[in-house]
Amino acid sequence: MMPRLYVPSLAPGARTAALPPDEADHVRRVLRARVGSPVRVFDGRGAEREARVDSLEGRTVTVVLGDAVAPARECRVSVTLGVAVLKGEKTDAVVRDAVMMGVAALQPMLTDRSDLPPAAVARGTRLDRWRRIAVASAKQCGRAVVPEVFAPSSLPECLARHRRDAGVVLVEPSSEGLARARRPVPRAPASALVLVGPEGGWTRGEVDAAVASGCAAVTLGPRTLRADAVPVVALGVLWHYWGELIV
Amino acid sequence: MMPRLYVPSLAPGARTAALPPDEADHVRRVLRARVGSPVRVFDGRGAEREARVDSLEGRTVTVVLGDAVAPARECRVSVTLGVAVLKGEKTDAVVRDAVMMGVAALQPMLTDRSDLPPAAVARGTRLDRWRRIAVASAKQCGRAVVPEVFAPSSLPECLARHRRDAGVVLVEPSSEGLARARRPVPRAPASALVLVGPEGGWTRGEVDAAVASGCAAVTLGPRTLRADAVPVVALGVLWHYWGELIV
Repeated sequence: MMPRLYVPSLAPGARTAALPPDEADHVRRVLRARVGSPVRVFDGRGAEREARVDSLEGRTVTVVLGDAVAPARECRVSVTLGVAVLKGEKTDAVVRDAVMMGVAALQPMLTDRSDLPPAAVARGTRLDRWRRIAVASAKQCGRAVVPEVFAPSSLPECLARHRRDAGVVLVEPSSEGLARARRPVPRAPASALVLVGPEGGWTRGEVDAAVASGCAAVTLGPRTLRADAVPVVALGVLWHYWGELIV
Repeated sequence: MMPRLYVPSLAPGARTAALPPDEADHVRRVLRARVGSPVRVFDGRGAEREARVDSLEGRTVTVVLGDAVAPARECRVSVTLGVAVLKGEKTDAVVRDAVMMGVAALQPMLTDRSDLPPAAVARGTRLDRWRRIAVASAKQCGRAVVPEVFAPSSLPECLARHRRDAGVVLVEPSSEGLARARRPVPRAPASALVLVGPEGGWTRGEVDAAVASGCAAVTLGPRTLRADAVPVVALGVLWHYWGELIV
């Protein structure tokens, strides 16, 4: 794959662009690009252009922009993944995988059984890292959209904040399967909120709150999946259910 | 979840069992169990029993066996995952996730674009580690079946060796989607071979060989998934397609 650079300041009609400092660094140190090297640049909002390195002076790298190119198609269902912050660095992998799977946004959450002091999350270093991971994952998977990673919230805040046509809350294997969920998952929603709990699961009150706000409670089968694997499996299954996997 | 111990020598009518050395170690050092502590034991072939620690003498731990218990249901489709050995430790995660997702067996493969010297794999330390990971993952996800991990083979060997009612070869996003695959994936096979390639993908000849031997070539949508994420996503989608996610 051609090197893809994230240039949020990219203007629609521009003929040249200056790379942000981290992308300029990457071009010089990792790609070891020269004047004339072909790259692609994308704005994180869906636009992607062919480009060539035009100058490398000190820490400044500029590119000459070429034709628009078609990035990987975005999903028809705009999914916000509401996901409990997991122990250690596991949320890093969740962010990386969820962006690769095509979510529109991520809402990290501190839930009743989240095993983390809110202060540890609130300091913001995690949020900054998750946002950098979202950019890196978008580059790698071919998306020209960088999903927004919101500041951590509670589940009630998440339910109140994110407007959606459909909601899905992933629950333990003892609950019912997707195809038999008491409240069926809509077949063709324009937007959806998909909720995944922490290692210790949701409390009963949390599941009730999600269901009361319109979410279908579904499970991914009889085996116990690791909490950090649930988002990627759930998104794969939902894409299939929603017909997204027909290219 | 109650601690689950792997005792391959477990006999159907037995009243007691001696734990293998590593499980005895685990019971003493990690679980810090005492005489009378409740555990569960499973044989790796589908049987699971309630049990209580009966004696801890030196390195020997015995348990008294109780009633049979119902482990997590196995999938109706017996899937062998044929997966190219990936760089570094990435195959470890693939084995762990594939067992969690319920495969019946794993066939590691060295393919045309595998970036590994066959000697590095043949020495057997990797195979031993994968087998240990399969046991650990079965314990964690609630399965009483430990999938077999075969010694690495080539793709032609894999295609010749594993009898199946259906075959699926996962290919790049430029190929066709599951629902439009030229050769449709059968709806209710008793067994299936699911093939996943290495970071650099399959060669054209490999895809042709898989298709010639009856595999449907399918993709998981327009984005580029990391090679180590493909098995877990593909299995989730296939379970949904095959109706396995109805508990």
